[in-house]
Amino acid sequence: MDACVFCGLISADSARWIAKESAAVAFLPLPGEEIAPGHTLVVPRRHTTAGVLDVAPLDLAQVMDLAQRIAQKMVAKLGAAGVCLLNASGPGSGRSVDHLHLHVVPRYPGDSDDTLPWPAGRSRHRLAVDPQVVLST
Amino acid sequence: MDACVFCGLISADSARWIAKESAAVAFLPLPGEEIAPGHTLVVPRRHTTAGVLDVAPLDLAQVMDLAQRIAQKMVAKLGAAGVCLLNASGPGSGRSVDHLHLHVVPRYPGDSDDTLPWPAGRSRHRLAVDPQVVLST
Repeated sequence: MDACVFCGLISADSARWIAKESAAVAFLPLPGEEIAPGHTLVVPRRHTTAGVLDVAPLDLAQVMDLAQRIAQKMVAKLGAAGVCLLNASGPGSGRSVDHLHLHVVPRYPGDSDDTLPWPAGRSRHRLAVDPQVVLST
Repeated sequence: MDACVFCGLISADSARWIAKESAAVAFLPLPGEEIAPGHTLVVPRRHTTAGVLDVAPLDLAQVMDLAQRIAQKMVAKLGAAGVCLLNASGPGSGRSVDHLHLHVVPRYPGDSDDTLPWPAGRSRHRLAVDPQVVLST
């Protein structure tokens, strides 16, 4: 039995997918969990037990390469001004799941906390498009 | 004239260096700017104008590879329990400098905000060792 929620999503092919590549996948968080519209999680297919602390370096490189392309789409296609990328790994880091996950969060013009490198609250920005459709194409 | 503060540090070889590699370097923030003792910045040698949005993919891979090794040392040698990695890129992201910089922040046992994926305040943890010496060796 696989108790990792991200391994479970991957094996069941059950998520709001943005991308499914050989070593890395990307998907939207559960509805209501987004920090901002379009907030995306990028994870390696292979499980990790301590995030960036034990991910295979080539898997990390693929995660980052995918994250960069998604970040670029957030600006080009969703109207984001910038992006924030965050990973928390290991005990006491605030990570919710040990399987490495990189948050890619679009920052929109008008977000109230645009001087903070990590948003203090949720963006009130609303998109006129479906971020899953836009980011996955 | 080069107005980028990180390009300036690199060209002047003037920083509290942790690592100087072919495509990426790492250094401690200015004294007093650390979120936690050992907080390290990893940057590509080549300038970027919008962080992760325009960094060369191979430079990004080298930045992440170095960041991973530093994160592992934070746990193995500084006594961190976990780590947080953060990059803010582009307008409205809270980035202070446009040249890509990845924050690698150790999270210590006893840090009060250890349920947050990005610390809300500064760690009160104190090290018995010099993080520049420990992380650079």
